[in-house]
Amino acid sequence: MASMTIIDIAKMCGVGVTTVSRAINNHPDISEETKAMIMKVIKENHYVPNNSARNLKRSASKTIAVLIKGITNPFFNRMIQVFEKEIQRKKYSFILQRVDENQDEIDVAIELEKEKRLKGIVFLGGNFSHAKEKLEQLTVPFVLSTIGMAAEYDPHEYSSVSVDDFKESYKMVDYLCKLGHRQIAILTASMDDVSIGKLRYEGYKKALEDHGLQVNDKLVFSMKEDIESYSMENGYVVTKELLASGEDFTALFAVSDSLAVGACKAIFESGKSVPGDYSVAGFDGLDIAYYYNPSITTIRQPVEEIAEETIKILFDLIHKKTTHAHKTFPAELVVRESTVPLFR
Amino acid sequence: MASMTIIDIAKMCGVGVTTVSRAINNHPDISEETKAMIMKVIKENHYVPNNSARNLKRSASKTIAVLIKGITNPFFNRMIQVFEKEIQRKKYSFILQRVDENQDEIDVAIELEKEKRLKGIVFLGGNFSHAKEKLEQLTVPFVLSTIGMAAEYDPHEYSSVSVDDFKESYKMVDYLCKLGHRQIAILTASMDDVSIGKLRYEGYKKALEDHGLQVNDKLVFSMKEDIESYSMENGYVVTKELLASGEDFTALFAVSDSLAVGACKAIFESGKSVPGDYSVAGFDGLDIAYYYNPSITTIRQPVEEIAEETIKILFDLIHKKTTHAHKTFPAELVVRESTVPLFR
Repeated sequence: MASMTIIDIAKMCGVGVTTVSRAINNHPDISEETKAMIMKVIKENHYVPNNSARNLKRSASKTIAVLIKGITNPFFNRMIQVFEKEIQRKKYSFILQRVDENQDEIDVAIELEKEKRLKGIVFLGGNFSHAKEKLEQLTVPFVLSTIGMAAEYDPHEYSSVSVDDFKESYKMVDYLCKLGHRQIAILTASMDDVSIGKLRYEGYKKALEDHGLQVNDKLVFSMKEDIESYSMENGYVVTKELLASGEDFTALFAVSDSLAVGACKAIFESGKSVPGDYSVAGFDGLDIAYYYNPSITTIRQPVEEIAEETIKILFDLIHKKTTHAHKTFPAELVVRESTVPLFR
Repeated sequence: MASMTIIDIAKMCGVGVTTVSRAINNHPDISEETKAMIMKVIKENHYVPNNSARNLKRSASKTIAVLIKGITNPFFNRMIQVFEKEIQRKKYSFILQRVDENQDEIDVAIELEKEKRLKGIVFLGGNFSHAKEKLEQLTVPFVLSTIGMAAEYDPHEYSSVSVDDFKESYKMVDYLCKLGHRQIAILTASMDDVSIGKLRYEGYKKALEDHGLQVNDKLVFSMKEDIESYSMENGYVVTKELLASGEDFTALFAVSDSLAVGACKAIFESGKSVPGDYSVAGFDGLDIAYYYNPSITTIRQPVEEIAEETIKILFDLIHKKTTHAHKTFPAELVVRESTVPLFR
């Protein structure tokens, strides 16, 4: 029965394949009687029509899990689509597993490994600062995708794909400095974040220094920990505080586009404008940065390339073609309406 | 070994439970030597620490699948979080399965049912216009969540949770008419969509009629089928066409907030303003409708209540407390900056 095809059904019904297809797809050019007869035969024989279903057939033992921290972050949406496509193309099954912000992704991975007999894992988003001994509990290959890794890790012990968060952050702040801005606020991760947040903050600091500027701690703001990370709401709430602090600034670098959108909203509500009163820049290259009013200057990450390379490396690890690999993609400074020279 | 606890590890190491916890969580207040010793014991004993991991433990045979059409639609993000929480609270396992726009969700469901021995299914998003005989191939309980159902279905044969798409759409267009608008364009689903798109279009039509207006077909625009449904890009491209058509209008009702954002962008690029030249309204109540500039008038769907009720009904079906149930939640007209009276 498992190997039954649409041709078998057509034969049993005494009709052509096209007619069966029409019945299955609820096509108007078939009589109700014929359709009912065909669907009855299909049902009795437990025939599963349609290629999409056949494509889904997978060996339960060949599964890749993608563990994602921050599923509501639109940055990951396009990546998830690419992961799924690439994993299915390799004839592996795909599990998407959310990890809560307060969950430990390694614990989740270890548990999934046992339960689903995984062949590989992609960690997507979040920070990564686990004890080395804990990482070693993972017995299957894994790749960190768009996760900054703390410097103390030995690069031989893991694989990663991302942009250079330090360099790209530097690029943005260097650009703001070249526009003449001297008082540049940053909205970043909490100061105990040791990966992406730290790297982007370090890039900010270095760019200021190279322009002869010092970091003013009163212009360094961290996301709220009780609000979703990198979200519009977080950007909004923190920028309200920045504005209320009374500290002068002329530009704001938010380390995600969603944060930048929230920041703009807070500025508008205070009766000020972007970019007239404040230049605002984001990071990521989300669609909304283009569609927002004003459109938002950002660093566009090549998300599809990052996702494809992640899967490529994961399968190289699975097939033992490599023991570890690190790939860094360049990102692009996209200048839009939200940033202008200080004195026009 | 499976029942090993943190207390066992602490005993084996000759330290307190707090110390073990510190080692696991990479806490600074523990010496490197002690930590290394504890992690070694943990590793040798294959102990899986942390509650988050224990919460993940699930019986493989008690699984609920959520099949989602349009995973990049931010409308679903919050719902997915609620589904996962509620399903885990019932001690069931949770599978999130994407369905491509061109895939048949019933085929995917039938295949998953076999492979994962599901106990129940939630269909999230998309249209629903399958042959009755095909629906009957599903042997486990299922609930349609935020899916408009074609009128020809017998409500005894399925369960659903959603807003009343006809009524809520009527509410928005009635509001625009009361602002004095007479030439109201709509950006909706394709005309062969028989569920949400049709219902929202019908609500639009009825509201116009009740204000003594006729539908002008030249102001009815469908989303592009080759661009992601309900997306900003789709709203942008279609509104460009609307503007290029030269047909006069003063208000635009886009049937999702993302479409409305894209519509605003197209209007700005044409040198016109919102709401000065055109009032624009959306639907859904996404965060971005609030954070956009101008903020966008919308119909806010109670997504958390819808998600919770979906799971409640699904478990009522699983436990045979009911054979079918339909719940419709009221949504809220949220008036913001993007809509104004025609002649101020």
